[in-house]
Amino acid sequence: MNVVPIVRTAGNARMSKMVRAGNLLFLAGQTSSGAPHAHTIEEQATEALGRIDTLLEQAGSSRRHLLSVTIYLKDMALFDRMNVVWQDWVDPEHLPARCTVQARLGLPELLVEFSVTAAAS
Amino acid sequence: MNVVPIVRTAGNARMSKMVRAGNLLFLAGQTSSGAPHAHTIEEQATEALGRIDTLLEQAGSSRRHLLSVTIYLKDMALFDRMNVVWQDWVDPEHLPARCTVQARLGLPELLVEFSVTAAAS
Amino acid sequence: MNVVPIVRTAGNARMSKMVRAGNLLFLAGQTSSGAPHAHTIEEQATEALGRIDTLLEQAGSSRRHLLSVTIYLKDMALFDRMNVVWQDWVDPEHLPARCTVQARLGLPELLVEFSVTAAAS
Repeated sequence: MNVVPIVRTAGNARMSKMVRAGNLLFLAGQTSSGAPHAHTIEEQATEALGRIDTLLEQAGSSRRHLLSVTIYLKDMALFDRMNVVWQDWVDPEHLPARCTVQARLGLPELLVEFSVTAAAS
Repeated sequence: MNVVPIVRTAGNARMSKMVRAGNLLFLAGQTSSGAPHAHTIEEQATEALGRIDTLLEQAGSSRRHLLSVTIYLKDMALFDRMNVVWQDWVDPEHLPARCTVQARLGLPELLVEFSVTAAAS
Repeated sequence: MNVVPIVRTAGNARMSKMVRAGNLLFLAGQTSSGAPHAHTIEEQATEALGRIDTLLEQAGSSRRHLLSVTIYLKDMALFDRMNVVWQDWVDPEHLPARCTVQARLGLPELLVEFSVTAAAS
């Protein structure tokens, strides 16, 4: 069996922003970290989902190629508000599998993080 | 490289119940949500694992094709009781990789959620 | 479409230590469980990452083939100390995508667990 070709999108000293392995794309967990005006769950989800768009587009992929998304919410009370942003963002004909759990994230101010697996195109 | 064929099993407005990408199946997180008589961890795990069976069978797959399962428990004190149901359900010759962590789930009454990656057949 | 070949590395009655599906490797969550002298986050991370090395090498793979890693920390206050060990371990030219969240793990003494997807070679 041949080795699957791996392509890594530079991130920081700890991780790649995205890794392509054959037809699969694995994205680093996306948040609004560093976006000074993303305070509310709506602002943070919008910012993080926009970053996912940017990464997927760099690979010639798109939100229409999402396979599976794990969503970490700092507080499950934000579930409905996050979902409003989510449903406005996803393509209803190309919805990923999804799993949402509550977890504290890397910075206290972060309310949501999206861990994405997608198909390359 | 050719695009991997993607097949989505309809879920709700937010997610697919299952997404097939080539030979991989990604299932939405499975719980006992909406099952009125699934109160205990044993009842909830049984219900959720049964839903996994149903989804996998729809794809011509089965619990013998599990690759990796992340298990989210509302309370890690339920670990041993969940495992009794799990071990009765899995095929001992075809065990997936597994990771179990504690996390609050989407509804307060939910005790366990299973996030499954499996092989299509 | 042909069935993807699946190879399972024996673990315990509940899970495989590692599952290979075609070119992908799915590892069971790796901790320092059972290592009597792994108390600090540094010791635990070193032990767990060493176990990942061992598993990957059994598959002819290596830390240079990491695709995506989810890191569960018992306490996000350990983030920086875990990262020191992590950065010493990873190959800077072959960094995986990564996502780190806080979660209570299977045993109260466990501080970190790594859930790894890698490429077979």
